[in-house]
Amino acid sequence: MKIAFQGEAGAYSEQAVFNYFGQVDTQPCESFDAVFDAVVSNKCESALIPIENSLAGSIHQNYDLLLRHNLHIVGEYFLRVQHCLIALPDVKKEDIKKAISHPQALGQCAAYLRSHNIKAEQVYDTAGSVKMLKESGARDTAAIASRRAAELYGMQILEEGIEDNPENYTRFLAIQHEVKIPEGESKTSIVFTLKNVPGALFKALSVFALRDIDLTKIESRPLQGSPWEYLFYIDFIGAEHEEITKRALDHLGEYAVMLRVLGSYPRFK
Amino acid sequence: MKIAFQGEAGAYSEQAVFNYFGQVDTQPCESFDAVFDAVVSNKCESALIPIENSLAGSIHQNYDLLLRHNLHIVGEYFLRVQHCLIALPDVKKEDIKKAISHPQALGQCAAYLRSHNIKAEQVYDTAGSVKMLKESGARDTAAIASRRAAELYGMQILEEGIEDNPENYTRFLAIQHEVKIPEGESKTSIVFTLKNVPGALFKALSVFALRDIDLTKIESRPLQGSPWEYLFYIDFIGAEHEEITKRALDHLGEYAVMLRVLGSYPRFK
Repeated sequence: MKIAFQGEAGAYSEQAVFNYFGQVDTQPCESFDAVFDAVVSNKCESALIPIENSLAGSIHQNYDLLLRHNLHIVGEYFLRVQHCLIALPDVKKEDIKKAISHPQALGQCAAYLRSHNIKAEQVYDTAGSVKMLKESGARDTAAIASRRAAELYGMQILEEGIEDNPENYTRFLAIQHEVKIPEGESKTSIVFTLKNVPGALFKALSVFALRDIDLTKIESRPLQGSPWEYLFYIDFIGAEHEEITKRALDHLGEYAVMLRVLGSYPRFK
Repeated sequence: MKIAFQGEAGAYSEQAVFNYFGQVDTQPCESFDAVFDAVVSNKCESALIPIENSLAGSIHQNYDLLLRHNLHIVGEYFLRVQHCLIALPDVKKEDIKKAISHPQALGQCAAYLRSHNIKAEQVYDTAGSVKMLKESGARDTAAIASRRAAELYGMQILEEGIEDNPENYTRFLAIQHEVKIPEGESKTSIVFTLKNVPGALFKALSVFALRDIDLTKIESRPLQGSPWEYLFYIDFIGAEHEEITKRALDHLGEYAVMLRVLGSYPRFK
């Protein structure tokens, strides 16, 4: 079994793959596009994509990719993100003038970096920043990445848990070709568009409210090619094969211009 | 009159400032934080911040900054974004192997860059990428920025309008200390939180639907410190001083845990 993820070996996404799937082969991919392609082309059985971070919000590109491809969401996983300040062996913390990492990791450590007078510089990946630092040999620079990335490249952890807010979780979705009927408490993810008329979203939400179905997420995205019209992504409690969910989706179909079920999957606890 | 914007001289935001305010002095700022600070500290009377792009979606950092500061939205403006491929004088298009720009501009020209075999490299700003290119003297590299940025730095435009999708607009908000009562058709922007119970958002939207008030935007953001609870940002047609809006906001106050009006302002036509 081979699972695709975005980033270099040692990325948080790879850690999430091992936690969720157990000991599997992993396929590092340069971009989210490449992650989807790896599954679509059957190079990998499945992929784990980050969809939302508790601090930074949604990873919108992956919402767009879910819509563009015909894969199914079959699982979710929440990873607690702990950032490490990583340097070459023997470097001291007071020598660090610059930190390199992915923009989101830098943003999540902004207060820490400011208080230590460390300048932030964006690179494309967290684990990749550790590799780049090792190759450059710079002694005034630190990378911000996972413990696993530091260990993988034989680097020193100057400090662990430097994120400004400890409530830092990333939600991942497992995607694959085949639908899988979930057992136990489930979530369903859907995407739809509405006519641009007053009250349209209110009516759409009524199909859940009138059946006491609990929404766990709502997200709007611009509809490409139609400025200021929106796609709505909703997650709710329930599975597609359950009668109440079927009725709610039928009812939503009366208002929606487009409606697609992205998948039903066990709720992560 | 001095107006703050994010980016270097020649940024799209600066163009929007001139289009919206006319001939004013401008204050370039390194970050959105610095833009808000410039107004809060009275160094500038006002600022123009991008809040949403028709392709890329919302600029979430500015939603967070609107919440953190006590400034008022007094206007909106829509700018049509046209990206130029910019090089040193005498460089030919076929020599270009690499393009530098802000990640969002690179993303909006992704198909063009792929089809021309040009590698993308992220830098912090569109206009800044033109300045960097000029300083570096690199002849295999192009910057992606506005026509104005090319002219400002005496550079060559190899091609104009290289964005993949011509429906590329950015919506800007004018912010300042003082509330301004709008005339004519208006929009109001609010932010609120709800109890995490089924049907909460449905009830919140009912206060608009029951009064035939048209929503133009809904956005959810994670509430910092409370993973998976959300702030909701809504724009709707109407002004705070109008009776129907007052009633809707009073009604929303019955459900909302927190509710703040960010401003009422003339709708851009």
